[in-house]
Amino acid sequence: MSHSLTSVFQKIDSLKPQFFSRLTKAIQIPAVSSDESLRSKVFDKAKFISEQLSQSGFHDIKMVDLGIQPPPISTPNLSLPPVILSRFGSDPSKKTVLVYGHYDVQPAQLEDGWDTEPFKLVIDEAKGIMKGRGVTDDTGPLLSWINVVDAFKASGQEFPVNLVTCFEGMEESGSLKLDELIKKEANGYFKGVDAVCISDNYWLGTKKPVLTYGLRGCNYYQTIIEGPSADLHSGIFGGVVAEPMIDLMQVLGSLVDSKGKILIDGIDEMVAPLTEKEKALYKDIEFSVEELNAATGSKTSLYDKKEDILMHRWRYPSLSIHGVEGAFSAQGAKTVIPAKVFGKFSIRTVPDMDSEKLTSLVQKHCDAKFKSLNSPNKCRTELIHDGAYWVSDPFNAQFTAAKKATKLVYGVDPDFTREGGSIPITLTFQDALNTSVLLLPMGRGDDGAHSINEKLDISNFVGGMKTMAAYLQYYSESPEN
Amino acid sequence: MSHSLTSVFQKIDSLKPQFFSRLTKAIQIPAVSSDESLRSKVFDKAKFISEQLSQSGFHDIKMVDLGIQPPPISTPNLSLPPVILSRFGSDPSKKTVLVYGHYDVQPAQLEDGWDTEPFKLVIDEAKGIMKGRGVTDDTGPLLSWINVVDAFKASGQEFPVNLVTCFEGMEESGSLKLDELIKKEANGYFKGVDAVCISDNYWLGTKKPVLTYGLRGCNYYQTIIEGPSADLHSGIFGGVVAEPMIDLMQVLGSLVDSKGKILIDGIDEMVAPLTEKEKALYKDIEFSVEELNAATGSKTSLYDKKEDILMHRWRYPSLSIHGVEGAFSAQGAKTVIPAKVFGKFSIRTVPDMDSEKLTSLVQKHCDAKFKSLNSPNKCRTELIHDGAYWVSDPFNAQFTAAKKATKLVYGVDPDFTREGGSIPITLTFQDALNTSVLLLPMGRGDDGAHSINEKLDISNFVGGMKTMAAYLQYYSESPEN
Ligand SMILES: [Zn+2]
Ligand SMILES: [Zn+2]
Ligand SMILES: [Zn+2]
Ligand SMILES: [Zn+2]
Repeated sequence: MSHSLTSVFQKIDSLKPQFFSRLTKAIQIPAVSSDESLRSKVFDKAKFISEQLSQSGFHDIKMVDLGIQPPPISTPNLSLPPVILSRFGSDPSKKTVLVYGHYDVQPAQLEDGWDTEPFKLVIDEAKGIMKGRGVTDDTGPLLSWINVVDAFKASGQEFPVNLVTCFEGMEESGSLKLDELIKKEANGYFKGVDAVCISDNYWLGTKKPVLTYGLRGCNYYQTIIEGPSADLHSGIFGGVVAEPMIDLMQVLGSLVDSKGKILIDGIDEMVAPLTEKEKALYKDIEFSVEELNAATGSKTSLYDKKEDILMHRWRYPSLSIHGVEGAFSAQGAKTVIPAKVFGKFSIRTVPDMDSEKLTSLVQKHCDAKFKSLNSPNKCRTELIHDGAYWVSDPFNAQFTAAKKATKLVYGVDPDFTREGGSIPITLTFQDALNTSVLLLPMGRGDDGAHSINEKLDISNFVGGMKTMAAYLQYYSESPEN
Repeated sequence: MSHSLTSVFQKIDSLKPQFFSRLTKAIQIPAVSSDESLRSKVFDKAKFISEQLSQSGFHDIKMVDLGIQPPPISTPNLSLPPVILSRFGSDPSKKTVLVYGHYDVQPAQLEDGWDTEPFKLVIDEAKGIMKGRGVTDDTGPLLSWINVVDAFKASGQEFPVNLVTCFEGMEESGSLKLDELIKKEANGYFKGVDAVCISDNYWLGTKKPVLTYGLRGCNYYQTIIEGPSADLHSGIFGGVVAEPMIDLMQVLGSLVDSKGKILIDGIDEMVAPLTEKEKALYKDIEFSVEELNAATGSKTSLYDKKEDILMHRWRYPSLSIHGVEGAFSAQGAKTVIPAKVFGKFSIRTVPDMDSEKLTSLVQKHCDAKFKSLNSPNKCRTELIHDGAYWVSDPFNAQFTAAKKATKLVYGVDPDFTREGGSIPITLTFQDALNTSVLLLPMGRGDDGAHSINEKLDISNFVGGMKTMAAYLQYYSESPEN
């Protein structure tokens, strides 16, 4: 270990009481972005963070106003929380790293089943965990970037890069207007950014650190079948009219089988073939079907082998049927023939699936299936929204630096993982700033980010800060960007 | 025509102004049983009707208290409207006819699209119609029984039967507690009843009077598929777990095809074969595919031929898929994998389908289909409720009397029709009182009973009262019961 990192790591250890104190103050602000009545608390938390940035020597701090929250919303003229932009250092000879985090949190109430008050941080050194809403998602990781700056300063070491922060307060509520801001500031505040690092996801399991290099995309569709001009009574019309819901069951039932195999022609051919290099990454990843079953609380896994599960979660497309709009959906029994039904389904996308091509295959499939029914009803299938997949090169300069940092801190090489879901902002940063993006998770797979008793292991908090510090150091020393 | 009926018919014509006046006063009371805030109006209407009965010489008038309305309900301790029992005559040498009607109505507001105030009766003699909420369903027919008594009295003719009324105020809201009352009074107030007549349905079309001798039953089912212990995110779990919704599409899709053919083994065999006598009844019925298309506002009919449409509506079973509980059902896009879904479907039943046998066939079918999927999820299918079909002998004494009455009034033999839906109280009367039940509709198929601008043709109102009078006269003269 270089002398500089040794002393920074010592300071991270010795400054722990201050870091706990900072985290405690932040957690006690209930910054729930989805609760309109708590919006002022989200603003309070933004103010607290900007004060921390200021105290730690960040400069050019800007609380960017994103305007009024667009509908649907109950409170008129509700302001969006600010995006906090700031810098630490602006040395043209150094690389510039943008770090993203969010200070808003999911809702939480003691009555939901928490063991302790969710907005009061509990630090249990004996058990080695901290518990409180936002501790792992994402207040802990966000503050860690500031903590790392403090540790470098306290150790007397030169900070290895220029740091730019982009901290938002609406991530749990759709990151409203953030895309626009990133695009707008690409050649403004964010000019000169060489790399982006996001610490807002988790290890796959509980033991082994990971670096995340891919996310699936999502194309969301609805098949609309219309028949009668209004809902009909099934006593009077059952058996004599073509029911849209009956047709819809046939169309939705033709999309995918119970083994998860997508039955739409042409999709398999779009999926990038598995290379030997990629395949090798799966072999050492710590995961098992038991972990999947624990997560679903059931034995509903479609695969037994670790590699099959991970590949189907990360690098193969999947099709889920979400529900039906327009039909009876309450408890009990209602004897209605719905006149117009919307079947909702989505396809998780992976390299090299083209969104437009996919949509045309989906429409062709649904149209053909419906035609085969010879129904007098009308059917059409439309895209509601799409978000592209993201895959980075896990062997690039950022990932290589982060891998070396992880090995230094945890003594093992990280698993290179992907995720099944999407973090749309990842792709926005990559495309708008034309940089590589690293997803550097701090917490574990069992932290319960959106659940009760959200926690962060103290070892992950400390190890995470050290990994951030080392990553910045190694990345700064890398010959490439 | 017998001299007695001639003079009664003359009185029905001459008393029209009084009948209009009585109907006008009744319609202006907004007795909406489903609107808890209007419950006092339902009571007001009961009082008005009991006053009319009293003025017309009915005796033994009882406002039967059915107690507090059971949940679900918003208003605590809301009393159910009374059932109005009364008698006209109690001559042991005469037959006794129980007439059923309901004085509550469907909701109605000018803003729904009515051309005039719904609770202000409009009598348009030029167009020959009366318009107002309840005029055809069922206030007009209900008051007509009282009007007929007035006409007999005014004509100086002996009333041919003992009349018993059973007028309820909760028909549009499920006839709560009425079943229990009928069973309780079978050997009480209703002791000695020879026949039951219900005037609460409609002609099939607009031109030809009908008598209704059959109703389909309804068995309502749900197939429940459970997998994960909670809803899952489709990004993380899509493609690696067996999704209950995907299995449900297969099970629901296996029940019936887009042509309305039920695919469950063993059902066809339970359906009573078509006899020549029954088949002959369909030939002359006035109906066409154009009327069906007008009613559905579409061209979604499964059949072109009149006989096929009528038989599939009345004498063959049908299967409708109503919806899915537990899945996403709102507008927009939500990326959830529902953990537990309830598929709702119902089968309209006909002679000689046995409800228990049907349920076991349905369960066997669903279980076998689910088993073929090899899914790790769990599946079961259960009956939510059943209500039996009802078919009367259209050649019995009551129907023969009503047929003769119709011919006398309208100059044509009525069509003998059945209905696709169920009126559960019909079977309750038949079974509890061990009598035959006649459904004697007054209004036309286009009256818009539960819709805007509900109307009753004046010719149907007058013709209906005359038909009621003649039916009672002929039935009283019939040698059989
Ligand atoms: Zn987060
Ligand atoms: Zn979150
Ligand atoms: Zn009615
Ligand atoms: Zn009604």
